[in-house]
Amino acid sequence: MAHKVLILNGPNLNMLGTREPAIYGATTLGDIEANCKAHAKGLGLTVDFRQSNHEGKLVDWIQQARGKANCIIINPAAYTHTSVAILDALKMTDLPIIELHMSNVHAREPFRYHSYVSPVATGVLCGFGADGYIMALDAAARLIAAQTSKQNKK
Amino acid sequence: MAHKVLILNGPNLNMLGTREPAIYGATTLGDIEANCKAHAKGLGLTVDFRQSNHEGKLVDWIQQARGKANCIIINPAAYTHTSVAILDALKMTDLPIIELHMSNVHAREPFRYHSYVSPVATGVLCGFGADGYIMALDAAARLIAAQTSKQNKK
Amino acid sequence: MAHKVLILNGPNLNMLGTREPAIYGATTLGDIEANCKAHAKGLGLTVDFRQSNHEGKLVDWIQQARGKANCIIINPAAYTHTSVAILDALKMTDLPIIELHMSNVHAREPFRYHSYVSPVATGVLCGFGADGYIMALDAAARLIAAQTSKQNKK
Amino acid sequence: MAHKVLILNGPNLNMLGTREPAIYGATTLGDIEANCKAHAKGLGLTVDFRQSNHEGKLVDWIQQARGKANCIIINPAAYTHTSVAILDALKMTDLPIIELHMSNVHAREPFRYHSYVSPVATGVLCGFGADGYIMALDAAARLIAAQTSKQNKK
Amino acid sequence: MAHKVLILNGPNLNMLGTREPAIYGATTLGDIEANCKAHAKGLGLTVDFRQSNHEGKLVDWIQQARGKANCIIINPAAYTHTSVAILDALKMTDLPIIELHMSNVHAREPFRYHSYVSPVATGVLCGFGADGYIMALDAAARLIAAQTSKQNKK
Amino acid sequence: MAHKVLILNGPNLNMLGTREPAIYGATTLGDIEANCKAHAKGLGLTVDFRQSNHEGKLVDWIQQARGKANCIIINPAAYTHTSVAILDALKMTDLPIIELHMSNVHAREPFRYHSYVSPVATGVLCGFGADGYIMALDAAARLIAAQTSKQNKK
Amino acid sequence: MAHKVLILNGPNLNMLGTREPAIYGATTLGDIEANCKAHAKGLGLTVDFRQSNHEGKLVDWIQQARGKANCIIINPAAYTHTSVAILDALKMTDLPIIELHMSNVHAREPFRYHSYVSPVATGVLCGFGADGYIMALDAAARLIAAQTSKQNKK
Amino acid sequence: MAHKVLILNGPNLNMLGTREPAIYGATTLGDIEANCKAHAKGLGLTVDFRQSNHEGKLVDWIQQARGKANCIIINPAAYTHTSVAILDALKMTDLPIIELHMSNVHAREPFRYHSYVSPVATGVLCGFGADGYIMALDAAARLIAAQTSKQNKK
Amino acid sequence: MAHKVLILNGPNLNMLGTREPAIYGATTLGDIEANCKAHAKGLGLTVDFRQSNHEGKLVDWIQQARGKANCIIINPAAYTHTSVAILDALKMTDLPIIELHMSNVHAREPFRYHSYVSPVATGVLCGFGADGYIMALDAAARLIAAQTSKQNKK
Amino acid sequence: MAHKVLILNGPNLNMLGTREPAIYGATTLGDIEANCKAHAKGLGLTVDFRQSNHEGKLVDWIQQARGKANCIIINPAAYTHTSVAILDALKMTDLPIIELHMSNVHAREPFRYHSYVSPVATGVLCGFGADGYIMALDAAARLIAAQTSKQNKK
Amino acid sequence: MAHKVLILNGPNLNMLGTREPAIYGATTLGDIEANCKAHAKGLGLTVDFRQSNHEGKLVDWIQQARGKANCIIINPAAYTHTSVAILDALKMTDLPIIELHMSNVHAREPFRYHSYVSPVATGVLCGFGADGYIMALDAAARLIAAQTSKQNKK
Amino acid sequence: MAHKVLILNGPNLNMLGTREPAIYGATTLGDIEANCKAHAKGLGLTVDFRQSNHEGKLVDWIQQARGKANCIIINPAAYTHTSVAILDALKMTDLPIIELHMSNVHAREPFRYHSYVSPVATGVLCGFGADGYIMALDAAARLIAAQTSKQNKK
Repeated sequence: MAHKVLILNGPNLNMLGTREPAIYGATTLGDIEANCKAHAKGLGLTVDFRQSNHEGKLVDWIQQARGKANCIIINPAAYTHTSVAILDALKMTDLPIIELHMSNVHAREPFRYHSYVSPVATGVLCGFGADGYIMALDAAARLIAAQTSKQNKK
Repeated sequence: MAHKVLILNGPNLNMLGTREPAIYGATTLGDIEANCKAHAKGLGLTVDFRQSNHEGKLVDWIQQARGKANCIIINPAAYTHTSVAILDALKMTDLPIIELHMSNVHAREPFRYHSYVSPVATGVLCGFGADGYIMALDAAARLIAAQTSKQNKK
Repeated sequence: MAHKVLILNGPNLNMLGTREPAIYGATTLGDIEANCKAHAKGLGLTVDFRQSNHEGKLVDWIQQARGKANCIIINPAAYTHTSVAILDALKMTDLPIIELHMSNVHAREPFRYHSYVSPVATGVLCGFGADGYIMALDAAARLIAAQTSKQNKK
Repeated sequence: MAHKVLILNGPNLNMLGTREPAIYGATTLGDIEANCKAHAKGLGLTVDFRQSNHEGKLVDWIQQARGKANCIIINPAAYTHTSVAILDALKMTDLPIIELHMSNVHAREPFRYHSYVSPVATGVLCGFGADGYIMALDAAARLIAAQTSKQNKK
Repeated sequence: MAHKVLILNGPNLNMLGTREPAIYGATTLGDIEANCKAHAKGLGLTVDFRQSNHEGKLVDWIQQARGKANCIIINPAAYTHTSVAILDALKMTDLPIIELHMSNVHAREPFRYHSYVSPVATGVLCGFGADGYIMALDAAARLIAAQTSKQNKK
Repeated sequence: MAHKVLILNGPNLNMLGTREPAIYGATTLGDIEANCKAHAKGLGLTVDFRQSNHEGKLVDWIQQARGKANCIIINPAAYTHTSVAILDALKMTDLPIIELHMSNVHAREPFRYHSYVSPVATGVLCGFGADGYIMALDAAARLIAAQTSKQNKK
Repeated sequence: MAHKVLILNGPNLNMLGTREPAIYGATTLGDIEANCKAHAKGLGLTVDFRQSNHEGKLVDWIQQARGKANCIIINPAAYTHTSVAILDALKMTDLPIIELHMSNVHAREPFRYHSYVSPVATGVLCGFGADGYIMALDAAARLIAAQTSKQNKK
Repeated sequence: MAHKVLILNGPNLNMLGTREPAIYGATTLGDIEANCKAHAKGLGLTVDFRQSNHEGKLVDWIQQARGKANCIIINPAAYTHTSVAILDALKMTDLPIIELHMSNVHAREPFRYHSYVSPVATGVLCGFGADGYIMALDAAARLIAAQTSKQNKK
Repeated sequence: MAHKVLILNGPNLNMLGTREPAIYGATTLGDIEANCKAHAKGLGLTVDFRQSNHEGKLVDWIQQARGKANCIIINPAAYTHTSVAILDALKMTDLPIIELHMSNVHAREPFRYHSYVSPVATGVLCGFGADGYIMALDAAARLIAAQTSKQNKK
Repeated sequence: MAHKVLILNGPNLNMLGTREPAIYGATTLGDIEANCKAHAKGLGLTVDFRQSNHEGKLVDWIQQARGKANCIIINPAAYTHTSVAILDALKMTDLPIIELHMSNVHAREPFRYHSYVSPVATGVLCGFGADGYIMALDAAARLIAAQTSKQNKK
Repeated sequence: MAHKVLILNGPNLNMLGTREPAIYGATTLGDIEANCKAHAKGLGLTVDFRQSNHEGKLVDWIQQARGKANCIIINPAAYTHTSVAILDALKMTDLPIIELHMSNVHAREPFRYHSYVSPVATGVLCGFGADGYIMALDAAARLIAAQTSKQNKK
Repeated sequence: MAHKVLILNGPNLNMLGTREPAIYGATTLGDIEANCKAHAKGLGLTVDFRQSNHEGKLVDWIQQARGKANCIIINPAAYTHTSVAILDALKMTDLPIIELHMSNVHAREPFRYHSYVSPVATGVLCGFGADGYIMALDAAARLIAAQTSKQNKK
């Protein structure tokens, strides 16, 4: 059975392609979802791709991932900097977590340098635009493979 | 066709008139909505007046304003100080934005001095009580007129 | 008629018993609810016990408490550190408020030392695990009794 | 007899219309004075409109307002951020005070975010350009009317 | 043999009932001691109740608790915020420690928000007035029972 | 009956005249006590003059002043900067308090700029050497006289 | 020939007796000047008593004191916290300097805790109301006497 | 002709595989270089792979990259947090820059959260161990392709 | 026609040669003015040399420079650290600005490290004593020549 | 006559050997005293070895050292971080002072990095466990020898 | 014999003329060296002009300057903000030191405002581009002349 | 075979004896090396004694110590405060590390209070001048003996 990756997108990412294209490009979130699903297929993974503007909804989804997904890729967008609730939810999943930002947050306003999520992430990547999702999927595939191989050895 | 102003009200403003009247007065949010609609009529504007306690709901409404409203007046209340999501949503509307607080936030607790919204607002006003909404509508009318006249010249 | 205590639980507390048991123990939130209801009965109180991952939902519930509950016990979890909206909602209830944390927040990450809720709470307690709820109910009973006796004297 | 509004302008505002037009527009301070006087007339108010580059001169004028003016509108410009003397002078007038900035100070250098004046102002507005003076006069008229009606009731 | 609880009270608590009654009530420390002893009896505990204005004396007493008491309840008062010596002494006792403040320290001056004691306490409670001592005793009884049951199982 | 002034001296002041004479001069604490008693006599006051290196002892003495002294003059020396216990003790005396430093603390190390005592003092003076005690006694005489005259009027 | 003391008063002190009487009392600056002159006479001193709202004017006066006055008593009021120019001017006079505040600045807003003047003052006193001027004159007399006696010995 | 990627490794990375394996794994830098070269081949890229403990040497190499390499991947290790010289050198190359850390720097000591390099990087990734180099090469290939296609269009 | 350089000197510089000679030397401001005029002559420049203790007067002079001077050399002295008004005035002149300090401000009190003026200056120099004025004139000559040559090319 | 070294031990050091042996080892303070006395003998020194939990007692002892001891070795323990009184007492002894900590304070909680004592110590050492006392005695012997040789030369 | 000036250039200055010409212009470091040598000749000075990207190399050169050069002009570039080693080396030369920056560091990123070198420099200049070297040489000539004349007088 | 101690000296220590003798004395680094070697002999140790001004060189040497030396004594000089690279290199050696400063760094500029090295050192000593090296060797001998005895027991 294919391993599953939950890809979560935070507030305003549903507006991608329409917003500040100088920073984020013209690709829509639908395009990204399609690319992710295609790329995941090649990696033998299935993808559950979601977006919400609601912090609580993201927390709900993270909680439900436990036992259903093998890895979480999360682009927390604005909640990166303000949500302890998402941090707490991620911490209790015991899954590999990849934090992703399309823009280089270190080149923007100082309040974007701090992430509540990073300390509980396995890995973090930013600044690669929509390609970041593909890189994250590649990493997810390796992390899941490593975990599976470790479990098989036991 | 009349220009439209979206007036958004953040958490706990639905309790106006019942809460800390020494600071906010006895006027209810319903009173304010009625006054806004009457005053807007005189300015040739229509008003869409909403309130939510949910950060994500306010983000949803701001996203939907694009292309439907000509100006946003927002009293973000508690989310003024904690919501990057609302900041990001406002930034992508490309509309004139007026930030409004009924009390003088500079005379309250220090954490109320900082607003995530102010840097992306066209103008900010606070301390004028319910009259602040009327002042904001007057300003909205002028901002819309200026914008329309600029577009007509092109 | 029995006095009513509203017990509110913030994000991720629905996962109790499954999450970081070294810190929180194996008791589930359902166990706690049952214990609270049993203990409250002995104190002549009824309990309305709720949990949400949504900041806005917690604000809604606090607003509705006014005139219906005699005391609020709140474990704001992650929103302790980030929610001005909950602070504002609590402030307007005019009810005794007991803030409760199961773990000792002062022995965890520094960002957990600050609580927006504490300045408007009547009392605060942390570090007593699930027993903290029982202690909070005992305190609620005393606070309600004191208030009732004060009102009877008038 | 008409109520009087004292409108004070701080350093460098005499250069308006010649300076950084991208931020302040081409309107001169003389234009603003004329517009204020015309608009005040319609509100049944007279205006005393002044400008100085000297902190001490502004303090002198504020002191003299006591008993002669019914409201002060002040655009303290650079002294906003550095003058405790103006703060102290305003505090002792017992008049309604409206603080006004033509540009949105929250979108400029960080040292412009802090105002010594704001905590003693009745209301604050910024970012509305020259129109801010008109909005401030409207607010002044309402504040004076409210005060007069309160005094008449006594 | 009855388990023993050491209750330590820091500087100025001997003046209770005479000092700032709006904050602390009219109960004296003698009243509290009597209540504690009565309540402890019902819990099958004995109480050793002490007060000192001297930091060094409190350190002496904490050191002596080792092997003689089963739990320490400490209201460090002013030394909460300034004493590393008390922190170090508590840390070496290997006993459950309950930190107690009668007033809600989070609603007072900012320097009262920080406690050197809290990170080594099992639990912390504040704002419940003299009732806090009763709550702390209830908690002590539970903590001792849990510890005893754990030791019996070994 | 003569009014009484309690003059308290903190740690190391017993070494006056032997220590860093460039800063404190050659006068001993005994000299100062003698001068104070002589000067107080001329003002119709008696003086109770004490020194301790022990924070707890100073707290004890302040507590005992209540109802026995009419004013406290305190040179808290090193405890100025570190003692919340002395602050709390002074606050509960309800007496006029004069804080005194022989050297100009503002011209020394930065940690000496902050005083826990100052916010509860009636007046503060520093930098006048041993003469500061005489100035403080003069002020004490005036404060006691003002208080007595106020009480007589009631 | 009588020694001369220059007494300088900063911004808004000309309004004394009319402003915030709860803090500053009903005494006017004219009353204080008269009291100072009378008290100085008894000390064999003459007094030059001035007030200005202008920082530059205060700097001018301090510069002129050199060689004409034997001591400066300065109540810098608001400029205490903001004027490096006054600090620099005082530093170059080589005269004894007494800094004076009528209210206890340590019990007001935090920005009033810092004084640019204090590090170059001989002594500082605050919180004694109008009596502070009398205390400062007494201190000035002693400082001048000490200096004269030192010069005579050379 | 194949595009070239310069991969720079900062201080102590030559010790990889021998040092803190719990954090960095047992892979040596030689292993990583071999993997990078093999993977690059598949992407049609050549790799110039270097390591130095000397800040100045890394600056020299970055300067030489101009006009010779098409992309820089840099793991600045300790110099991430302390080197403005490397920041300045990278800024002047006008090449795409990928910053890479094997461990998740956000989960280590606070001084490791700040990177001088990040603001001038195109993208940043951390926490993926030796796989991070492969991910960076994939990203480099895409960035070079995008740049080449942009240049071809001109 | 000769180009004109406005040389402005801030508070207390009129006392040069009399004040803290260890830091500033014995040269008076009159000497400096004479040297500047002689040196300027050799450079084909005229000099308008002024000093004021009044912030507002310095602002007035800067405003008047527009269109009359070709370069401003300013030694803002104490106002360097406190005047936003001078910063704003300089910014609107559109002239080359040279900021000058006779002493090395970086080797004095920490509050002298920050200059409001530096960010709008073309160049800054400090620590060269009275020679700094000659260096600044040399720089002014070059800046004016560069500007003139640029305008001639248009 | 043998030179004397006063060795002072701060709060909780009397518990050595019983407390946190992972950090401090099993050696008791009695063992250390015996070792110090034996080692001192070999160096021709006598040792006065004391411990107190009372800040004031430590201050008393330091004051008495003057003229009686030739060097002070102090392990201030918790008072390192909180006692200005001990700093002041040490400063007035005019003796060489060696500050000693058994554990490496730089590897513990951040509040342990700051020592009030260090700036007045001749030398500081930490992290060498009980051996630190021997090292300090060796250093004391050298410091006393150097001082004696200097005095003999005069 | 001609006096010698050592001119040291820090990291990346060898790239001048190729890098960020909007900030630094098109002049190369070779051009600057040639100009310096020509200008020095006219001043009767010889110039030793060097550049390194290596902090240690710059330290080596500064150490060697002692007794060989009469003045050091240093443009520490990136090491301005990070090198205590260069600060220490400069401090021990006992030579006049001129710190030079081509760009106005006060108008760039905040981390460029702080210089470790400035407190030990005789004078500092920035923002004058390549002309800054000429100004520095003029200043060096005057500083050497002043020193020589002082030595001749002895 | 004799155990080996690597003694590393950071930048500018090669200038010892020529530099700021008031702080460091007249002893040269050569003298110290000779003394160390003689003293080590008595302890049955050999010494490898090195100095470099280059951070990278120090890192190289630390890396090479692994498996060749039994203890590192390091006087990192200026790099104490700025080098994460040295911290990382030391951390991976798994050797006992003694950090040494000749002057008392706590009595110098504030930036010298922080050491990147201290948290990974076994012990730290400062302020004992050249004798510090002898003390460090004594400590090294004890640390090596303890380690050897522990290994023999296994």
